[in-house]
Amino acid sequence: MIPEVAVLRLGHRPERDQRVTTHVGLVARAFGARRMLLAAHDPGVVRSIRDVVARWGGAFQVEGDVGWRRCLVDWKAAGGTVVHLSMYGLDLTEVIDRVRACDPVLVVVGAEKVPGEVYGLADYNVAVTHQPHSEIAGLAVFLDRLFEGRELLIEYPDAQIHVLPSERGKVALGPAEEE
Amino acid sequence: MIPEVAVLRLGHRPERDQRVTTHVGLVARAFGARRMLLAAHDPGVVRSIRDVVARWGGAFQVEGDVGWRRCLVDWKAAGGTVVHLSMYGLDLTEVIDRVRACDPVLVVVGAEKVPGEVYGLADYNVAVTHQPHSEIAGLAVFLDRLFEGRELLIEYPDAQIHVLPSERGKVALGPAEEE
Repeated sequence: MIPEVAVLRLGHRPERDQRVTTHVGLVARAFGARRMLLAAHDPGVVRSIRDVVARWGGAFQVEGDVGWRRCLVDWKAAGGTVVHLSMYGLDLTEVIDRVRACDPVLVVVGAEKVPGEVYGLADYNVAVTHQPHSEIAGLAVFLDRLFEGRELLIEYPDAQIHVLPSERGKVALGPAEEE
Repeated sequence: MIPEVAVLRLGHRPERDQRVTTHVGLVARAFGARRMLLAAHDPGVVRSIRDVVARWGGAFQVEGDVGWRRCLVDWKAAGGTVVHLSMYGLDLTEVIDRVRACDPVLVVVGAEKVPGEVYGLADYNVAVTHQPHSEIAGLAVFLDRLFEGRELLIEYPDAQIHVLPSERGKVALGPAEEE
């Protein structure tokens, strides 16, 4: 079974997290999640992720101004599973098979500080290594393991731009693109 | 064989890339690379990664002010292999077994703009999806595939802080840590 996945981004501070949160959203899309929910007011980040979807295709959705507590409670009330990525959680390899049997899955990705309540509300607290690194990396590796690499094969028939894999150089079909 | 890996970070702009480059360095360390070479002058980023190494252990090294062209040329002259991560490259799954047979490996991670020369100097241009997302995510998934998950088991006997995997909450041994 391939679960339907949404990503909830917590703790975003518009003054300093815009690039990191944008990376979280783009990773969510590129690694097979369906939606990103942003627990903050930052229309610029929402817009820049939507711009990528418009040019690169697919049906990925982004929603801002989400209340995180309500989101978690409603997700669980509707029968969904909540996974919180944290270096303090259980080993990825220990829990990933159990998570793969759940559907839908909400993956919670925090910034530096995460309210303690999130650890209690989550069905699984999952660590992608117990070392400090990056919520962007944690999300990517988690989704890669969850989808067992199938996400690397996703195609976007409605894309305006298509990259052609190349040994050297940059080959893309579609409108001129400043990467 | 497990190759020895260094990560070269290109295109870092001190005014806007500090957090992303710090994440690149922390991912390099946490996912099993030995060194980060930063092709820019940014002592603050170098210091903050070294601070993590001092508290969390291991022998990861960081060096700033690296000239990227010289670094690539010298690496190849010494018999090393250069892998450049780029959405325009060949599929990860197609080349990873070949890269795993090389040692040492320099993984080049660009920011938004990468000089065309890099595509020519690289032995392998490798794409972790052909979609725009994040060099942090690309590096993490590349290293996870290269090391086949062994990097998730790395231990740091000299660490000041040890996390104990936990179903709920934050359990760590060592000095009080504001994550």
